Amino acid sequence: MNEYDRPVFFHLMAYADAADRDVVDMVSGNPDWEAPAALREGLREYADAPVDEFQYPPSEGLTELREEIAARRGVDVERVVVTNGAGEANYLAMACALRALDGDEVVLADPVYPYYYNRTEMLDATPRLVAAEPDGTLDADAVREVASDDTALIVINSPNNPTGGVYGRETKRELVAVAEEHDALLVSDEVYDHFVYEEGAFASALEFDSERTVVTNAFSKSMAITGFRVGYAVFPEWLVDDVRTRHMLVNVAGPRPSQYAVLEALRETPAEYYEENRRMLESRIDAFCDALDEAGAEYTRPQGSFYVMARFDGYPGTLENVERLIDEAGVAGMPGDAFGRSRADWLRFALVTPRAEEAAARLAEYFG
Amino acid sequence: MNEYDRPVFFHLMAYADAADRDVVDMVSGNPDWEAPAALREGLREYADAPVDEFQYPPSEGLTELREEIAARRGVDVERVVVTNGAGEANYLAMACALRALDGDEVVLADPVYPYYYNRTEMLDATPRLVAAEPDGTLDADAVREVASDDTALIVINSPNNPTGGVYGRETKRELVAVAEEHDALLVSDEVYDHFVYEEGAFASALEFDSERTVVTNAFSKSMAITGFRVGYAVFPEWLVDDVRTRHMLVNVAGPRPSQYAVLEALRETPAEYYEENRRMLESRIDAFCDALDEAGAEYTRPQGSFYVMARFDGYPGTLENVERLIDEAGVAGMPGDAFGRSRADWLRFALVTPRAEEAAARLAEYFG
Repeated sequence: MNEYDRPVFFHLMAYADAADRDVVDMVSGNPDWEAPAALREGLREYADAPVDEFQYPPSEGLTELREEIAARRGVDVERVVVTNGAGEANYLAMACALRALDGDEVVLADPVYPYYYNRTEMLDATPRLVAAEPDGTLDADAVREVASDDTALIVINSPNNPTGGVYGRETKRELVAVAEEHDALLVSDEVYDHFVYEEGAFASALEFDSERTVVTNAFSKSMAITGFRVGYAVFPEWLVDDVRTRHMLVNVAGPRPSQYAVLEALRETPAEYYEENRRMLESRIDAFCDALDEAGAEYTRPQGSFYVMARFDGYPGTLENVERLIDEAGVAGMPGDAFGRSRADWLRFALVTPRAEEAAARLAEYFG
Repeated sequence: MNEYDRPVFFHLMAYADAADRDVVDMVSGNPDWEAPAALREGLREYADAPVDEFQYPPSEGLTELREEIAARRGVDVERVVVTNGAGEANYLAMACALRALDGDEVVLADPVYPYYYNRTEMLDATPRLVAAEPDGTLDADAVREVASDDTALIVINSPNNPTGGVYGRETKRELVAVAEEHDALLVSDEVYDHFVYEEGAFASALEFDSERTVVTNAFSKSMAITGFRVGYAVFPEWLVDDVRTRHMLVNVAGPRPSQYAVLEALRETPAEYYEENRRMLESRIDAFCDALDEAGAEYTRPQGSFYVMARFDGYPGTLENVERLIDEAGVAGMPGDAFGRSRADWLRFALVTPRAEEAAARLAEYFG
């Protein structure tokens, strides 16, 4: 996983674009559904704002946006930093914790979201991978076995990309405990928290009110605006000053047009918006999994997020096989081996296209 | 300069806001003039864009924006990375050069833009300050004396913040040569390149076509949009892959609404827009300097940018004195000692208010 300068998904999207045939693109995690109406209205309003509102927002984010987030999350506003997407939030948490804490090991789930792995290497730390369970979640005991006083960070993502697993409340409680036992930091990336398909399955790591936990999140997926770059994190008090400093020295501040529009959307968007998108994705998942049954594939039905991992007999998840699937079946996924070792034989499909069902039918025909 | 977590200018803006009297704010470098009309129009257009245009732009920036920049700068588009303002461009150049090159010293001008100094410390490198000349520029021979094989970076800013100096073509040529002699990298931050008051005084470091030069820039000042976070840099080929990787792992991508609006503005804004703002600032500078003459101050008339440094007899540029000036004269500037040692006795005033002349009259009365 060292070749992160030109990620495989850019290569594959280009490959699919250049293919001679019609291809259903299930490579990237870019939402295809509509953004909140209030977000568009916020941008229109901002276009007419006085020019002083075009200048630097506070480095840690627009004050009203931070207040809105803090109120919703039930935390002190001083712990909230608005970031350039969840990506920067995770970077800041990892970089600052590795500075502040003893240990240079980072515990990650395998399959792993490649950014976590590559950031770990960029920060000169050592990744320690723990294989995920069959349902795509993580076993806290397996993490406990790998953790030691060399552990500085445990980075988790639930609902999970790429497995679709949702770690239960008890698992999260245990992972917080493991971080506490080793004076490490648990980074809980909850960017898919609006996409959980079983009521009560999801618990935020904030519930456990630990000094050893950072929760990162973003509006990228929940509002279908991955290009706006508005995320945030809730840091423990002992870390937040380091984070603000690094954020300022790296980025100065985040993009104000985006923050303004997100604030409007956060205030004005009804719960139905999120609920409808969740239901729409659930029905795509049902149709896709039905077709995978037809194709005789092994797969993990996602409890959350909008990815499905599947394994087809004699068809391991290599880049070469993914390209063959584009050319011969007209479906573009991601190779499992881009996500580590434990699901190198699998393929990942992102259900962010209205043609998910059509893609599934193509897979059923190709493999069936 | 270690206390960069809560920069002095935030403190001073709050102090000025809370003052019992009317205060002219000349603390921050936020433009107060109108943004290009095409920028506002670009935002309006974007608000109605299809949702796929709300998703991640290419990590290195919108392709058309990079092409527009490359064409204007006369460089290969592969060398252009669009960043989260000039701040991120400078961070990326410094972080990647310190990784790739031998040496851990960073040569900086004194007075120094505090972000350069604080970034140097964050990156575990050693700042080496070179005192600026009386006109606010840098003597290349003085840099040569300090440079050695321990030098990894020389970071300059011309037109300069805070001095207003513009380094001449020969100085820049020499600084490029010093970087080449020591296998170091010259980072030339040219964010004020639209604000030069003497024709031909400014030369971009790109002119010298050196493998040892990075030019950083942004639209923040030229388009009066410091809050949009759109900057860029032109990197040498040997460094650009490292930069893309770090940019991706830190920020994933930059804000697309901002990049879209800047692209529109870059294409549609006539030269008169920039020229009028330049002239307007020039007349503010004239009026302000006239009043400084009346006040009996020593000062540097800026050849570029929009800052004036001034020294008042028996009134050194401490935070305490700046606060006193807010309370007693109704003018808020920046303490010189926030910018290093060589101008610790001075104050810096940013001419980003239509009330610059009024402020100057207040100073003339207070000190005169």
